[in-house]
Amino acid sequence: MQPVRAETITIGDEILYGQIVDTNSQWISKELDKIGVKTVRKTTVSDSESDILEALAEASARADIILVTGGLGPTTDDLTKPCLAKFFQCDLALNEQALKDVQSIFDKIGRELTETNRQQAYLPTKCNVITNRVGTAPGMWFQENGKVYVSMPGVPHEMKTLMIEQVLPKLKTTFQTPAIYHKIVKTIGIGESWLADKIETWELQLPPHIKLAYLPGLGEVKLRLTAIGDDLGKLENEVHQQIKNLKPLAGEYIYGYDRDTLPAAVGNLLRSQKLTIASAESCSGGSVAQAITSVDGSSDYFMGSIVAYQNHLKKSLLAVSPVTLDNFGAVSEHTVLEMAEGIRKMLKVDIGVATSGIAGPGGGSLEKPVGTVWIAYVDGKNKISKKLSLYKDRAINIKLTTQAVLNLVRQRLVELDGEKV
Amino acid sequence: MQPVRAETITIGDEILYGQIVDTNSQWISKELDKIGVKTVRKTTVSDSESDILEALAEASARADIILVTGGLGPTTDDLTKPCLAKFFQCDLALNEQALKDVQSIFDKIGRELTETNRQQAYLPTKCNVITNRVGTAPGMWFQENGKVYVSMPGVPHEMKTLMIEQVLPKLKTTFQTPAIYHKIVKTIGIGESWLADKIETWELQLPPHIKLAYLPGLGEVKLRLTAIGDDLGKLENEVHQQIKNLKPLAGEYIYGYDRDTLPAAVGNLLRSQKLTIASAESCSGGSVAQAITSVDGSSDYFMGSIVAYQNHLKKSLLAVSPVTLDNFGAVSEHTVLEMAEGIRKMLKVDIGVATSGIAGPGGGSLEKPVGTVWIAYVDGKNKISKKLSLYKDRAINIKLTTQAVLNLVRQRLVELDGEKV
Repeated sequence: MQPVRAETITIGDEILYGQIVDTNSQWISKELDKIGVKTVRKTTVSDSESDILEALAEASARADIILVTGGLGPTTDDLTKPCLAKFFQCDLALNEQALKDVQSIFDKIGRELTETNRQQAYLPTKCNVITNRVGTAPGMWFQENGKVYVSMPGVPHEMKTLMIEQVLPKLKTTFQTPAIYHKIVKTIGIGESWLADKIETWELQLPPHIKLAYLPGLGEVKLRLTAIGDDLGKLENEVHQQIKNLKPLAGEYIYGYDRDTLPAAVGNLLRSQKLTIASAESCSGGSVAQAITSVDGSSDYFMGSIVAYQNHLKKSLLAVSPVTLDNFGAVSEHTVLEMAEGIRKMLKVDIGVATSGIAGPGGGSLEKPVGTVWIAYVDGKNKISKKLSLYKDRAINIKLTTQAVLNLVRQRLVELDGEKV
Repeated sequence: MQPVRAETITIGDEILYGQIVDTNSQWISKELDKIGVKTVRKTTVSDSESDILEALAEASARADIILVTGGLGPTTDDLTKPCLAKFFQCDLALNEQALKDVQSIFDKIGRELTETNRQQAYLPTKCNVITNRVGTAPGMWFQENGKVYVSMPGVPHEMKTLMIEQVLPKLKTTFQTPAIYHKIVKTIGIGESWLADKIETWELQLPPHIKLAYLPGLGEVKLRLTAIGDDLGKLENEVHQQIKNLKPLAGEYIYGYDRDTLPAAVGNLLRSQKLTIASAESCSGGSVAQAITSVDGSSDYFMGSIVAYQNHLKKSLLAVSPVTLDNFGAVSEHTVLEMAEGIRKMLKVDIGVATSGIAGPGGGSLEKPVGTVWIAYVDGKNKISKKLSLYKDRAINIKLTTQAVLNLVRQRLVELDGEKV
């Protein structure tokens, strides 16, 4: 089977000038890869008619699928639609469906449609509208000489919604692609090279049609298994068997698969064990609560959080002893354990977690440099504390602290689950 | 002066398959922009000889400067050098300087030069070597028919070192470039088309050498002004004068410029007015606290937060009246105002803010659909509440709620500032 070839064209001076990073084209090629479509080129062009037309012509000479993002706003610098009309040699005309779609967005927010937004419903007559239910710029689908051209807005969440709900399913039915099965195994608490050492024997015995890739991220390493063949069901079984074989080597680090998130994994453990949780936060500034509540239905197990950014609030709201604070300071094992116990009692929950540290970039000392963070977990029976030595970057320190707290809860709940059995 | 035009060519399957994000080309175009060179196109091609040659031919027909990254490693899938030799119709031969450079890297780490690494010193005979002092792959500089071609390794820190130390200075002396000045104006609380309507007269009077672009994001719209000319100081003054003229039309929506963030803008207002703040959060789940504390030094004005995810905690921790909760429900103007007042009194701060809503995707009703959110601001004198009608997406709703709370504080503090004057 000939591989189906795609190209992406990103339109926008803001990307060419380096003012924003184009994450859209990366996301798109990842999704295309999952359905067996190979991205053969990515092009970014400026908001210029001749450049856009040239890129369209070049791409259509090479690829079967051409995906265009950007240049679709209501303002004057957006040129995609007139260019597409010229490229397909047709007119721009008011599209009734697009007008209805834009109108319904405005109805929802209870505002009058402006003339500028009405203009957004003028589309090349040769296109099929792809309804954009999360924004005012419609997507467009063109089919000519066996090739498909799709134009989408550049705003990432709008583009993604259009792709997932409409473009990818439609591409799958339009083109014949080989069977590809991807599975992502998500690990936390182990670095890339240590993980590679641990699973080396397993990696070496993988058959040639199953490829392994390491995708390291902040505090996490993902393993992606990609199997290519004819029979999707067979590939799926093979990959699942390989993951079974992986577990004795690295199972303790695996928190989930594919779209699983760490907060959701922790949430599932809490729900299945019928436990409730609350957080007492200092340096993480609400980030632990935010992570837990990012999960739909988290109100089943999450009760609340107290962010005590100032020492007097650690005493008044979380019942940390003044003696502890005086003797050991806010960033200490004793304080963080008392904070966790304080929130557990105050909110009458099963599990209390806490953070206290120096997120930086200011505020460090020789004894407690920026990046020094204490975290704690208490559940009535167990008290666990842990010191993290992180970096100079505030955002990274907050993120890694939050991850470490969630992983501490995860590890303990997995153990608890084991103890019960 | 004709603008000097550059194109970047990124080589690598790992970028085309979406396994890594290409941050190199963004960095490069930002740096080129600073020296007045305009990036007119970015292309990413696979590790394939025909694709690389085609991209080189296309780029050299359009641009004055062609910057190639990637495909220079010691492994067999790296094709850049043979392609460049073919493109420039010359041979690959051992380059003495390149060999010396690689040798010195190996001497430094005290290892024997391997045959694979020795191969890296074989370069197209027409190139000038650009010494890579941080890696084993040499950079290459070609000059032909008034055009410059540079090949660099894809490893970001190697590419950056080569660019900063050698390529950019050499480009500056090779080409005459115009002065370019960029300024980004950041607005919040108004959609792109409404903003466009408001500032239309101003936009129309901009001189031809100052260009305006709308950069919409989630809940925000940025305006980018780009001025091109001969004298950087003059351009800077002109752009600042234009922004002065913009303020009477849209000043109330402007929270900052360039790298300013909304939490930092609010933080600056709080600090300069010597006010303290705390948040009481339900649907935002700690996200308001997290945004405020994302700013270094936020402990100057942020005291803390109570995330009361459950109704009984709204009563016990925030002193919301049971009658209010019974009569109006948790997602109501009355409740959110009492939450804000509760946190203000409890934490003894000047300003209390609060959120209560249905973040979704579950939990909506006919009367209060998913996306219904109440936010409040109280400061002892003023009580402001606002209802938001947001979307079905949980993450987006939490983000927009957080932004709206920060913007409410910003608007009120700007007013307070005005009242004082």
